[in-house]
Order: sequence, then structure tokens, then C-alpha cells
Amino acid sequence: MSVLFMSFSCTKQEASSESLVDSKLQGGHPNLILTKQSVSDIKSKLGTIPVFDKTLEASKNEVDAQIVKGIDVPVPKDMAGGYTHTQHKINYATMQKAGVLFQLLGDEKYATYIKDMLFAYAKMFPNLPLHPQTRSYARGKIFWQCLNDSNWLVFTSQAYDCIYDWLSKEDSDYLNKTLFRPYADFLSIETPQYFNRVHNHSTWGNVAVGMIALVMDDNELLDRALNGLKTDNIDPKAKDNDGGFIKNKEGKAGFLANLDSPFSPDGYYTEGPYYHRYAMYPFLIFGEALENKRPDLKIFEYKDGVLIKAVDALLNLTDADGEFFPLNDGQKGMSYYTASLVSAVDIAYYYGNKNPELLSVAKRQNKVQLDGTGLAIALALKEGKEKSFIKKSMELSDGSKGDEGGLGILRFQEGDETLGLLFKYSAHGLSHGHFDKLSFSLYENGDEVIQDYGLARFVNVEQKNGGGYLKENKTWAKQSIAHNTIIQNETSHFQGKFSIGENHHSDRFVFDVANPTFQIASAKENNAYPGTKLHRTIVMIKDEGDAKPYVLDVNKVVSSKKNQYDLPYYYFGQIIATNFDYKVSNTLSILGSKNGYQHLWNEGSGVVGDEGVQFTWLNNNKFYSITSATEKGDEIIFTKIGANDPKFNLRNDPSILQRKKGVKNTVYASIIESHGTYNAVTEKAAKAYSKFKSVKVEYDSDEYTAIRITTKDGKVKLVILSNKENSVEKEHSLKIGNKDYKWKGFYYYR
Amino acid sequence: MSVLFMSFSCTKQEASSESLVDSKLQGGHPNLILTKQSVSDIKSKLGTIPVFDKTLEASKNEVDAQIVKGIDVPVPKDMAGGYTHTQHKINYATMQKAGVLFQLLGDEKYATYIKDMLFAYAKMFPNLPLHPQTRSYARGKIFWQCLNDSNWLVFTSQAYDCIYDWLSKEDSDYLNKTLFRPYADFLSIETPQYFNRVHNHSTWGNVAVGMIALVMDDNELLDRALNGLKTDNIDPKAKDNDGGFIKNKEGKAGFLANLDSPFSPDGYYTEGPYYHRYAMYPFLIFGEALENKRPDLKIFEYKDGVLIKAVDALLNLTDADGEFFPLNDGQKGMSYYTASLVSAVDIAYYYGNKNPELLSVAKRQNKVQLDGTGLAIALALKEGKEKSFIKKSMELSDGSKGDEGGLGILRFQEGDETLGLLFKYSAHGLSHGHFDKLSFSLYENGDEVIQDYGLARFVNVEQKNGGGYLKENKTWAKQSIAHNTIIQNETSHFQGKFSIGENHHSDRFVFDVANPTFQIASAKENNAYPGTKLHRTIVMIKDEGDAKPYVLDVNKVVSSKKNQYDLPYYYFGQIIATNFDYKVSNTLSILGSKNGYQHLWNEGSGVVGDEGVQFTWLNNNKFYSITSATEKGDEIIFTKIGANDPKFNLRNDPSILQRKKGVKNTVYASIIESHGTYNAVTEKAAKAYSKFKSVKVEYDSDEYTAIRITTKDGKVKLVILSNKENSVEKEHSLKIGNKDYKWKGFYYYR
Repeated sequence: MSVLFMSFSCTKQEASSESLVDSKLQGGHPNLILTKQSVSDIKSKLGTIPVFDKTLEASKNEVDAQIVKGIDVPVPKDMAGGYTHTQHKINYATMQKAGVLFQLLGDEKYATYIKDMLFAYAKMFPNLPLHPQTRSYARGKIFWQCLNDSNWLVFTSQAYDCIYDWLSKEDSDYLNKTLFRPYADFLSIETPQYFNRVHNHSTWGNVAVGMIALVMDDNELLDRALNGLKTDNIDPKAKDNDGGFIKNKEGKAGFLANLDSPFSPDGYYTEGPYYHRYAMYPFLIFGEALENKRPDLKIFEYKDGVLIKAVDALLNLTDADGEFFPLNDGQKGMSYYTASLVSAVDIAYYYGNKNPELLSVAKRQNKVQLDGTGLAIALALKEGKEKSFIKKSMELSDGSKGDEGGLGILRFQEGDETLGLLFKYSAHGLSHGHFDKLSFSLYENGDEVIQDYGLARFVNVEQKNGGGYLKENKTWAKQSIAHNTIIQNETSHFQGKFSIGENHHSDRFVFDVANPTFQIASAKENNAYPGTKLHRTIVMIKDEGDAKPYVLDVNKVVSSKKNQYDLPYYYFGQIIATNFDYKVSNTLSILGSKNGYQHLWNEGSGVVGDEGVQFTWLNNNKFYSITSATEKGDEIIFTKIGANDPKFNLRNDPSILQRKKGVKNTVYASIIESHGTYNAVTEKAAKAYSKFKSVKVEYDSDEYTAIRITTKDGKVKLVILSNKENSVEKEHSLKIGNKDYKWKGFYYYR
Repeated sequence: MSVLFMSFSCTKQEASSESLVDSKLQGGHPNLILTKQSVSDIKSKLGTIPVFDKTLEASKNEVDAQIVKGIDVPVPKDMAGGYTHTQHKINYATMQKAGVLFQLLGDEKYATYIKDMLFAYAKMFPNLPLHPQTRSYARGKIFWQCLNDSNWLVFTSQAYDCIYDWLSKEDSDYLNKTLFRPYADFLSIETPQYFNRVHNHSTWGNVAVGMIALVMDDNELLDRALNGLKTDNIDPKAKDNDGGFIKNKEGKAGFLANLDSPFSPDGYYTEGPYYHRYAMYPFLIFGEALENKRPDLKIFEYKDGVLIKAVDALLNLTDADGEFFPLNDGQKGMSYYTASLVSAVDIAYYYGNKNPELLSVAKRQNKVQLDGTGLAIALALKEGKEKSFIKKSMELSDGSKGDEGGLGILRFQEGDETLGLLFKYSAHGLSHGHFDKLSFSLYENGDEVIQDYGLARFVNVEQKNGGGYLKENKTWAKQSIAHNTIIQNETSHFQGKFSIGENHHSDRFVFDVANPTFQIASAKENNAYPGTKLHRTIVMIKDEGDAKPYVLDVNKVVSSKKNQYDLPYYYFGQIIATNFDYKVSNTLSILGSKNGYQHLWNEGSGVVGDEGVQFTWLNNNKFYSITSATEKGDEIIFTKIGANDPKFNLRNDPSILQRKKGVKNTVYASIIESHGTYNAVTEKAAKAYSKFKSVKVEYDSDEYTAIRITTKDGKVKLVILSNKENSVEKEHSLKIGNKDYKWKGFYYYR
């Protein structure tokens, strides 16, 4: 750490330190993220706040290395992953850090570095045409898309704020006029199709314009950032690169509209956690900036404190390793260790209620934002104030008013053993949404058991379509068959059309986790296939004496006509046993011709009777089984992803798929169970067999569905689900065979 | 820890403790593994030797739990994994531990438990028929195969020794006569096809008989154990369950023969590390017993100390995580954390030269053998004497005289970054050998980069053929095409016949790792395909400025006639880019009809020119590339394992295969390179591209092969390999084109 503080002893820095004190008395910059007060607070603690000191030192090392390399502001040319793209990204990230270092360490070399680089940009910008790469619906100037140009401005604004008072007025006037105001106009007035939307891209645009507005004290720009352009002339039929409509249905735009609309009152961001994470930084950093400069706006109280709730929601949408559930277009592996979540956790801690559970996340992140919020975290961690962040079962509503379905998260935790299940009955999720109504995914200890495929993209891997979305994202990843849900007649929900899907959402029927040994989530979808009603109920049941729960999955389908229904489970690992006959072929053929089916190999299949099936597999040295009810004639198909994939863009993951043909109404009922372990060192297989003998649909009517579960040691349990009444108070009675059942509430389990 | 030592304060134990001191004065038991001296030494240290105390407590917990359950000696019935099989395994393991606990803690309940159980066995054994399961070539009585019956006796002998003096003479006479002597006769005289072989199974049999011989002081039995049966009447054509011949070619048998023959002078065990690990326990525990009771035999000096060398060799045959290279029939995941290696490391430390590097392995194992050797380890660890176990590049010869080829291991280590390459040019490896002459596998940081498939078996997973070898072990795993080596005309080496393969071995041509930046191993195989000579050279080259080395792989093939040659590389992960055209098909067909080819899907292929090919993939967030020379008309085929696999017994792993058709002589030359990383949190792809532009075969003759390597930044290097002269002193000169090259030694690199 000594490197950081030795510098204080040299005269030059002391002088500059004094000049900061002077300007403090006059008000002025920094006042965007760092403030004169927070700078003073931090400086008084430096060297005594381990996680802050460590983060600062890492930043110093990074910036110092860049300063040695010198200023490099190349003429824009390359796609994502290419040289000019990467260099401009390095530039804004370095400038932002250099600004912080200048304020906290007082070394003018950092200010000079920023100034020199800004002048280089100011020299280039006025004559820059649109970026030569033409792929984006909203081309940038420095980057191939406005989104990245906005990133640049969000970070650079912070650097600019840090040296604003250090610059001569002549210099700042020059930069305002030559670089920043035209830059902000370009991102807004000149690119309305980008700026004037409700979309995570636009949020970056709004915040970019808003941040520089605050630095320059430009109220016109700030109004534009908060409330959007008054007129934009966007074609209501225009679509972006992802196929999403550009024009907002309600005609809203600007930062506040982006806060209103994609966030539910619970803080769920309708595009899903991957984009939520991406949007989190501009939302919160601008929140902090507004709180500093325009506390009158009370931005953290906006929509009942949705900004803080959004951080909590996002942290709850992670597996045991902190990785986000890859809902919709989400790349697997992204986690709360990402920089935007460091910032989000720090800001949410500081401006929220100083929730000590956030400290334990910050502790795992092991870095902080270098401002007053990071200081607060570092001090609290130093004082050992953190509490475990316990992820509980919870529901997150979707829709700006919280009335467009949502997500049900069922969880179990005992010691280090965790199960997590995500059940999706939300709205479509804007242009990044997938056609996967009532789909789910299951996790054990941070590992996927029943997976959601995620997106078909290798972000920033240039060889794979420049790091952008792959064709297979549309032809495979978004399609219903790529998900653990019901597919009718080999077509995707809403015909796979965004224009239809965006108008609908599923509906929660029941979400009740009051009984930790019988946690139930149930939802309905009536629009995915006109004339067909889908009703899925997922229960996490922990029987007495069992180490962990199993999952009961019931899909009730009611249709006005006969259809083919498919329900795949995308597992991982190797097949250990099945209790039914099937045939494999000497050649592999594709499962279907379109809607994603063209990407599936049929690896083997069998037609079964009505005695049910059981399927056991081994993954990560754990044994899993699915035990399912069947009807005579059901087909079980082993599939593998990878057909019609000429560039090998897809992962070759397997599924087991249960198909019912020529059926109007039906019930799928399965138990998914993690039951045993394998140890490759002791070579012991423990509990390699399912504890279940069978799952049967005992009764099914409009009103009730009853499932009989029989274990191998002869225990029989009956689950009766009420299909219409979801009150916990309602009394029910039902005769099945000769037996009368009476109970209160929407389920019976005994 | 208090549980363990409180008991000393009670009168009963003190009495029994005293009686031990008495018998100590008279000589007597224990004297097999524990001795009166080591018991006394250990007891004086208990409570002050952390790793020993911890292991002892774990054993106590295990045994106490079994004692609560009571004695259960069921009538033998089940296969491996089944109830009676598992119970008898638990019984011998528990008895062995209980014996130790009785000696070290002095609590008679442990002695009583052993006695009661032995009497239950003694009651059952005389009337036991052969085990009802008939699958084994050498059926046992308690288990389905004699191998497991031998395991029982090896462990139970130790328990018996621990209570021998505590039993009345009447009782020990009864057990000797009714149980142990007949048991030993059954395993030897009555099952010569099992006992009188050179094979890991027989080692267990020899040691079982030898251990009980030492306990009973039965010299006739001991002679039988050490030197085998004088006559056995084994049919020379008889084979075991794995297809191996039973009768030893030289007619040798017994423990000493098993020490002579499968071990090379370097301590390499010809069956490979997986079976080496399995055999290690009986070899070393009997070594210790002989050293205790028959020090005159100087067993640890036998064959120039091969028992200790064998432990060192085995530890060197592991990846960075301590997992054994899965040569031949090896199950992946088995590692030096297995119990037999705990024992082996402790014994090798104690009876070897107290090598402090072994202590660091013991430290990772975090448990010790509960005897004098474990005490020595625990004391040394307590004193902090351990040194890192550095795995160096090394060659291990194969063959009892070290003249039957061997293994070349090339390694690189810098900090935590490691590369390990295993090049196999050994003998066949008895019945567990694979037909993979000159094959190799490559590891990075404990992860497989270019994999060896291992075996086709799920050990002890009952659903998979009772845990035994799967049919696909023969049809796939043993075949040449399952390995990273040359296959001619879609037939395996030696026609896939053990009877041919066992007569041959490859030959080292060069093994030179003197230069850490140019480590070279080269070997020849002239018998796999009569009329064809295979010569492979693998070099690990670290160029200046590179963080880690790359691998140059050169296969020179010379034949008397035209053939088809295939060279697959079994990589893992996802294809990122290729620089050649290929086609994928709408249906997948199998690559061939037999010799393993029937298990490969052809996922796509392309015919290429002579400009070479490059192939980049991503696995474990690392980017790898293979850059290969090609000749016009070469075919590149993407394969995936899994065809003709009706029970889904195989893993669906991919390979990229280079095929040359209608060619007599040829050279394959490729570079395999780990060059970049992907970070899913920062979404940064670093060095996603290979640094190489091309690899070309510049020159090839009987005498020399020259490879030209060109990097993307225009550097050109030439590697010239001498194909006939392997002296480091020999001077060479060669004209290629207009240029003269002169050098000394078997390679030129500049």
C-alpha cells in the first residue's frame, strides 16, 4: 500500500491538495459521483479501509500502466472485439479511474492524462462520420453502435467532473462546446430510434446524456435525459437488431420512463437478470449523481424505491455461486462479481437501509466502488457488520404495475446444500424475451440440474459473428422447444412472433411457500396457443427423513382440439438407467423441420404404456431421476441439440422429451429428484436408485387434478390440486374411487 | 478429540493396557502392521499429532457406528454394489479399523466385535459353496470373485493380528483351523487360475495368503504366497474375464514374480496407473508386514528398491489435481487421495529415504495410515518438514527389465500454471491394455485438453452392468480409434488382438528434456501394422516471450503399400473457428462399421488443399488451437462418440480427425496451443486467436523431417528432426532448397 501514500509527501501534490480545499469552499466539482465531502472523508481513512485500499491500488496499477503506454485515440474502424473498439473501451474505463485517482491521491498526472485524452477526442469528434460498420440499427461514431458510445460518455462524464475545476475555463468551455454537447446531441436528437425507447440500450443513452448534463449544468439536456425527446418521428413498425419494436407502445421515453416501465414494483426488470445486470450500472450511477446534484428529485424514492428493490431482486435471481439465472437472452457465467454489481451493491447499501446482508455480497466481491458508497461498505466490513445474504423462496412480479405474471423462486437450503428452482410465468421481456411460457430451471449447489439454454451468442468472441447474436439465437435459443415447457404441434408459443408475444403474459395462480416442506407455485397460460390452456404447478416437497426435497411438476393441458404435445427436460450428464424400452438408430435424423426442432437430433425413442417411466442420470457425481406418469402410446424421445448447425454454434446438450400425440386434454406429472452421489476416489455409489416407484395421475377434471406418488418402500402419497379455486380458506371435498377427501385450501397432500 | 482420550481414565482399559505391556515382554502380536513398539510410540504421542489424531477419530466414529448396528454376516448372494457384497466389504474394513482401535485405545469392545464377527464367518465358511453369481473366471465364496475374497483376507488378517494375543489359544486355534487356513487354501490351491498368475488380481491373492501366513506363523503358506504354487495345471489358452491369458508366459507366479514382472526398474506398473494404484496397497502393506516379521528378506531392497520407486512413479503419473492419467483401463477421477495411496505414501516415506516431498502429498491427503508409518508422517508434518512435490518431466521405462518402451512425460510449470503431456510408447499392459501405440494426452492445470478416453465402465454403479466392464470397453475404449494416434485402414493396432499386442512394445527413440524450452520425446512403432512404420515425435516448445509452451506433434508414417491413415485429436468444448470449408449433413451417419469406428458419428467434413488448416476451440474458458500441415486431398472430419450405443454407455465427446487416403508415406505435423482465455464475468476474450499462421512439412526423407512454423507476426522457425540418428553428439548437415543447415544432435531448431 505504501505506493499510494508516499506521494502525499511531495510538494506538488500538496499544492494541488490545497487548491482542492479552496474550491471546496466555493462549491463546484467534483459533485457528480465523488463529492468534495466524500473525497475529504475517504482521504481521511485511506490506508485503514482494507477493501477500499485494495481496490484503489488495483485501479492505480491499471491506470499507471495505461499512462506508460501513452494516449491512443484511434480512428474508429473495428467491430466489437477488434482493435479500435477495444482501445476506446480501455480509454473511457481508464479515464474514469484516473479521475478518481486524481481526486483521492491528488497527483496531477492523472488530470493531465484525462485532459490530453479528452483533447484528442475533441480534435477527432467534430469530423467523425457514422462508424463504418453498418450492422447496427443505431450506429455510433466511436463504436459500431450508439450503445457503446453511450458507455463512453457515462464513464467519461465522471472523469470530466473530477478534473472540471482543475481545467481552465477556456479548456472546459472548449470541451463542452466541441466534444460533449455535440456528443450528447448525437446520442439523442440525432439518433432518436436509439434514445427515445424503453429498452436497456436507451437507458444507457439517457444516462449518458444525463450525466454530462449534470457535469455541464445543462438543464435542457437534463430534461431530455429524464423525459426523452418530445418528438422523434420513429416509424412504429421499425425494429432493432434483435427484432424488437423500437417505438414504445405508450409513447414514453427517457430515464424516468425506463424506470417506470421495465421494472415491476418488486424490482424485477422485464428483460431478465442478464440485461438487468447490464442496465443496473447506468440506473444506479445516475441515481447517485441525481441524488448528489438534484436531491430534490428524490430519485431513490421514485416508484416506491424501485432502484433499491431492483438490486435486491437481481441478487435473488442468482444461483448458489452468485451466477444469474440465464432467463431470456442471458449468457451463462455472468454473476454478481461483475463490476456493475459491485457498484449496485455499494449504492444500494448506502442509499437503501444499510442492509447488512448486502455487506456479505460485497465481501465476496472483494472490491468496492471508489466513492462515498464504497467507503461506507469498506468501513462496515472493517467493523464486521455483515450478515449472510440468505436467498429465500420468493415471487417477483413482472410488469410496470406488477400485474403481468412474474417469477416464482423456490429454494431449499441446509448447510451448504441448496436447491433452487426458477419458474417463469412472466411477460415476454421485450426484444430479449424467449418464447418459454411456464418454463422452469432447477439448480443444485450452483450447478444446473434442469437447464435453461440461455442465449446463442459468444459475447465479445470476435470469431463468432463479431461477438454478436448468432443466427441460432432466433432459430434455436428463443424457440419454445429450447425450454423446459409444453410445445404444441411443434410450433413455438405465440407462433414465435414477438409482435404477438409482447401483448401477453402468464398469470400466477398460486404462490405459497409458507410451508417449507411443501412449497408450491402454480401459473396459467391461456394465450400461447389459442384454444389451448396450459396450467403448470411446481411443488418442492421435502418428506420427513429425506435430506433434501424433490420436485413435483404437473402440467395440465386443456384444448378445444386434438394436438401433439411435447415436454422436454434438458438435463446434463450421462444416462444411467431407464425402465422402458427404446430404440436407437444407425443414423441420426432431425426431430422436426422448423421452430427449433430442426436443431434437435433424435437419438432414440420408445413408445410406452400407462405404467409410467423412470429415467436416471449421473452428472457432477450426483444421481438424478425423473419419474413420470404416462398414458398408453406416449413416446419418450432422447434428443441432442446440434443439428443444422453449420458453424457449430450450439452446445450439444441432451434432453428427454415426453410426447403425446392426438390428444385434446392431458396431464403430465413428473417427479425430479436428486437422490445419490458417486465418488470417483472411493468408487462408491451412494443411493444410486430413485426412492420412487411410480407417479400416476389418479384423477383429473376441470376442478381437480390428483397425483398418486408411490415409493419403493411402499409408501403412497396423494397430491390433489385445485385447478380453479386458489383461496387458502376454501373448503374442498372430492370423491376419488370409493374414497372421500376433504381439505381446506388449494391443495391436499397426505 | 476429547472422546478418544477420556476413555483412558476408566479402569477396564487400564487393565487391558497393562496386559498388553505384559505380552510385549513376551514378544507376540501385534507384529504384522502395528507392532508392540509402534503401538507404544503412538500411544505416547496421541493427542499431539493432529493428522494422526484426526484420522483416528474418524475411524473411531466409523467403527462405533458399525458396532451400534451390530454384527451382520449375510449369506453371500449379490453382485458388486448389491447388499451382501457391500456388507461384507463394510465388515472387513470395519474389522481392520477396530483392530487398530483396540491396540491404540485399549477398549476391549473393539476386540470383542472382531472376535464375534470372526466367529460368525467361521461358522458360515466351512459350508459355503462357490458364490452363486457365475460371471467370474475365478468365483469367490463370500464375493462373486476371488479378488474380493482376497481383499477380505488382507484386511481381516490385520484385525486378527491385533486381537491374536487377546484371544484364548483355544479360540485362535479354532479360527486358524476352521476359517483362515481353509480360506487361504481356497484362494490358492483351489483357485490356481486366480492365484498363480502375474496380474494385479493375483497380487491380492498372494498377499492375502501371505498376510494370514505371517499372522499364523505358517511357513508353508508364506512360501506359497511368495513363490506361487509349484503346479497349477492351468490351460495355457484359458483367458480371464477381461480377455487376458491366465498362464504366465514364463511360468512365474507368487508375490515375488508379481514384483518382478509388471514393474519396470523405474517402478512403472505395466497395467497403468489405475491398476497400479489398486495393486499398491497389497504390495506395500505386505512389504511392511514382511519388513516387520521377516526383515531378513529385505523386501524394500528387492529389485533395487522397486516398491518405493513404484510409489514415486505413480505420484508422477498424476495431473495437477493428483488424478491419475487414465491410461489403458483407467477410470477418470481416481487420484492420490484414495486410501491405498495414503497407505503407499506413508509406507514409502517411512521405508524410503524420508523424502520430504512425500510429506506435501500426505498433507493434501490430510489423513494417514494408523501405524508407525503414519506416526512418522504426522510427526514430520507437525514439524513442518514438507517440501513441494514437484512433478518434473521424466521417462518411465516399461517391462520388467526396462527394455519394453515406456512413457514420456513432458511438463511445464510456472506458478500455478501447468502443462502436462503423457506420451505412451510402452508395452501392451496385460489384459487391461489398450491398442494405442504412440498415443498421447495433454493436460492444463489438471484439466484435460486432448483427452485419453479411459475405460468404458462405471465402477460400482450397479445399473451399468453391475458396475463391471461394459461391452463398449472392448468395442470402443480399447480400440485404436478411441485414442490420439494413427489408425491405418480403420483397423486397430495388432488387429485389436491381445494375443498379438502382448508380444510387442514401442521403442523410445529420443527422450531429452535437458533444455526446458525444447523438451522432446520421440518413439517408434514397427509392429502395430506389419509393413508400416510409425514414428512420432512430440516437442514442448516455449518460445521467448510466450507465457507457456506449445506442443509440436509430428507423425511420420512409412509403409510398403498405400493405405488410409487417420489421426484424431479428442478435444473438449466448443468449436470457435476453422479456416477451412466443410459441410454438415441433415442426418448423421456412422464413420465406419467396426474396430470402434461404428461408435463415431460423422458430424461434418471437408476436403482441404495443401495450405494447412487451423482449428480453434473454447473449453473451460480457455482458447486452444490446432494448426496442422495438410496435403492436397486430406480430409478433415468432425466426429462425435455415441453411435451404436444402445444403452448410452459412452460419453459423447468430439474429435477432429485428419484423414489421408491412398498414401504410402506421409508426415502429419501439428501444433497444439493453449493461447487465450475467456472471462464470463468481464466478458473479455483475451488472445482468442492462435499466434501461428501455418505449419508446413518443408522436407521429408528417411533421414530427416523438417517442419516450418510461421507465426502471424511473420516469424519463421524451422525444426529439423533426425529420423535415424539419436545421438546428441552426431553432427548433421542437410540442404533444403538452396539452404544448407548444419547442427549437432538429433534436432535443429531455429
